Amino acid sequence: MLFMRYSKLFGKTTKNIPKDEVSLNAKLLIQAGYVDKLMSGSYSLLPLGRLVELKLEQIVREEMNKIGSEEILMPLMHPKSIWNETGRWDKAKDIMYQLEKDGKEYAISFTHEEIFLDLVRKHSQSYRDFPILAYHFSTKFRNEPRAKSGILRCREFIMKDLYSAHLTEKELDEFYWKVADAYKLIFERVGLETKVVESGGGVFTENITHEFQVLCDTGEDLIFYCEKCDFAQNKEIAKVKEGDKCPKCDGKIEVSNGIEVGNIFRFGTLYSEKMNAFAIDKNNKKQFVHLGSYGIGITRLMGTLVEVGSDEKGIVWPENVAPFKAHLVGLDKEKSDKVYAELIKAGVEVLYDDREASPGEKLADCDLIGIPYRLVVSQKSGDKIELKKRTEEKPDLLSLDEIIKKLMP
Amino acid sequence: MLFMRYSKLFGKTTKNIPKDEVSLNAKLLIQAGYVDKLMSGSYSLLPLGRLVELKLEQIVREEMNKIGSEEILMPLMHPKSIWNETGRWDKAKDIMYQLEKDGKEYAISFTHEEIFLDLVRKHSQSYRDFPILAYHFSTKFRNEPRAKSGILRCREFIMKDLYSAHLTEKELDEFYWKVADAYKLIFERVGLETKVVESGGGVFTENITHEFQVLCDTGEDLIFYCEKCDFAQNKEIAKVKEGDKCPKCDGKIEVSNGIEVGNIFRFGTLYSEKMNAFAIDKNNKKQFVHLGSYGIGITRLMGTLVEVGSDEKGIVWPENVAPFKAHLVGLDKEKSDKVYAELIKAGVEVLYDDREASPGEKLADCDLIGIPYRLVVSQKSGDKIELKKRTEEKPDLLSLDEIIKKLMP
Repeated sequence: MLFMRYSKLFGKTTKNIPKDEVSLNAKLLIQAGYVDKLMSGSYSLLPLGRLVELKLEQIVREEMNKIGSEEILMPLMHPKSIWNETGRWDKAKDIMYQLEKDGKEYAISFTHEEIFLDLVRKHSQSYRDFPILAYHFSTKFRNEPRAKSGILRCREFIMKDLYSAHLTEKELDEFYWKVADAYKLIFERVGLETKVVESGGGVFTENITHEFQVLCDTGEDLIFYCEKCDFAQNKEIAKVKEGDKCPKCDGKIEVSNGIEVGNIFRFGTLYSEKMNAFAIDKNNKKQFVHLGSYGIGITRLMGTLVEVGSDEKGIVWPENVAPFKAHLVGLDKEKSDKVYAELIKAGVEVLYDDREASPGEKLADCDLIGIPYRLVVSQKSGDKIELKKRTEEKPDLLSLDEIIKKLMP
Repeated sequence: MLFMRYSKLFGKTTKNIPKDEVSLNAKLLIQAGYVDKLMSGSYSLLPLGRLVELKLEQIVREEMNKIGSEEILMPLMHPKSIWNETGRWDKAKDIMYQLEKDGKEYAISFTHEEIFLDLVRKHSQSYRDFPILAYHFSTKFRNEPRAKSGILRCREFIMKDLYSAHLTEKELDEFYWKVADAYKLIFERVGLETKVVESGGGVFTENITHEFQVLCDTGEDLIFYCEKCDFAQNKEIAKVKEGDKCPKCDGKIEVSNGIEVGNIFRFGTLYSEKMNAFAIDKNNKKQFVHLGSYGIGITRLMGTLVEVGSDEKGIVWPENVAPFKAHLVGLDKEKSDKVYAELIKAGVEVLYDDREASPGEKLADCDLIGIPYRLVVSQKSGDKIELKKRTEEKPDLLSLDEIIKKLMP
């Protein structure tokens, strides 16, 4: 969607915020028309929200393809039998939605290790087939006991999950750190600074895992990290406290809340042994595959960007993930229509506020929606157009040509 | 994914077809490595399958945007209360998966009319907000009593559903036929000839609806249609039989099986009255919104293309939806590596069979996979490359330049 008239957009700014909504991210996203709350922990993406989410997906997709992983799509409803193989039908019963229909039982997916390993064991017999690196964008369902953090902790949400299967622990380790690098790059591209934090594995694994944490006061996690080096541990496993000397250097330990935007797990052969997922190696020996699992919460990323990036006027999107690059505030219909047509011709992604509304209302909505460049076309500006970045205070007066040069893709 | 080495691809051709699989589409798609069967009525898309599915999505997205509808994403798990408003919690109980968790009941979505109307009533008060035209690509869950048609009739599948809300019946009707035109265009673009067939509405509506049917011996539907004009009715509502005179012209009625690839429904105010979804019109009067609902089964489209397009050697993809444009069969490694590099440079979408395997195996796999253009690079072909369309018998010998000119995007 390269261009859109705001008058036609479904999901305009609104003052109807559900009373039970306490999180900043959901309040702002609802107010600005990005999402709608269906029930606690579950949101629809309205057109603006879907645009952001698709941009996030595309950035993640590009980096996943670059490290040689391949996009697939696994089902969301699974037979009980496959979850019984690893024992997680019972072990993960609290978090997992389960249902019965016509005498058969199903799991509604909260993760896909079992399904991936089922694919691996059916499709790969020889060492030549390895590594297997597959990811998908998928809906996840988790029965979260509390869902008070807006789209940061939902009962239903979009996740990219990548799975890898290797013949040796060493190969798994190498790929694990390759994914870590790809994740850092992804978070940089979407405009987030992250810390790589050591953590436990929850219901997933008993090995040490790593989380990608964005330091943020409203985050649900608690991170102990060194002021100097890259040492960082999640509260669950940290043996240090604030003010301690760093165990890796002479720095001091600091503490902060954090939002987990990604995580990476090494399962080793834990589940592949239970599911009999193996391959025949070069020496003709049976090897259980070494499994890795790597997640990025796509809708959570969106919420995080709002939590850390917004100001008192509204959302501030980084350019790479904004629904549009420019927000054209039309205060003179004839002139604005022309500018809009020229921007479309030049391929600039533009949202055009063509409503009959007061300048004050349009400018406030523009700040709330948070698109990176604001263009104001009015009688006052004459032949020029007022250009202001969302993050700056003062506008510039530029010609249409100059603006197009600046904003062209 | 513009290019890929077959040696790295997850999901190669296989002889392991599940014994309970009777449909041609699933057999071929499994054999060629496009999908994997998780359980009856549920399949994973492997990388080749996901590529086809994403191309289908993109074509549908483009045509949906052209008619002014906007992409959203609605949740898959819904509170029981919203389905009780229309009475469908009970009425659609057979087809709908339902679950209970911690004392609360949820529906796993088989359609989204209720959720769309909930969005409409929350976001639109004035006639200025109409029409509302929103679509999404979404997973659908349906408890199909029989699931014997491969990916044509799944219990879990991908669907594009579009919903529209209007203030008058006339506006709904106008948009309804606009969608019909967009659907015809979509099916043309993906290479399918369809008939627009009158039908009943199943559990959805009691109004006359229209289906887009692909005539095909293995289709589950039965269509009565005129040999001359556009008269066509589904068995459910047809009052004519084979050989009858057409009620619209002097043609004769013929009969055929059909695969339904799309359908369009006019619900009118049936559900909006029950859900109190209304707007205030220009005369300051309350009007219940007129609802339309329009579906295209994306994974079903993929299955249909296989059912109607395959031959005794395998799948034959239309160019617009094939996972790659060219399949490079490398019979001389050094030469093939160079050709592959040049094709990548030119932006040609290419799958490169770089395996150490016999020419016979590679050529058979190439036919099975069904990519439109086959390139064979061998000692025998000298400086030239053998180019053959999947649908033709005889290859041409062309230079690399000529091939690039022909295949460039």
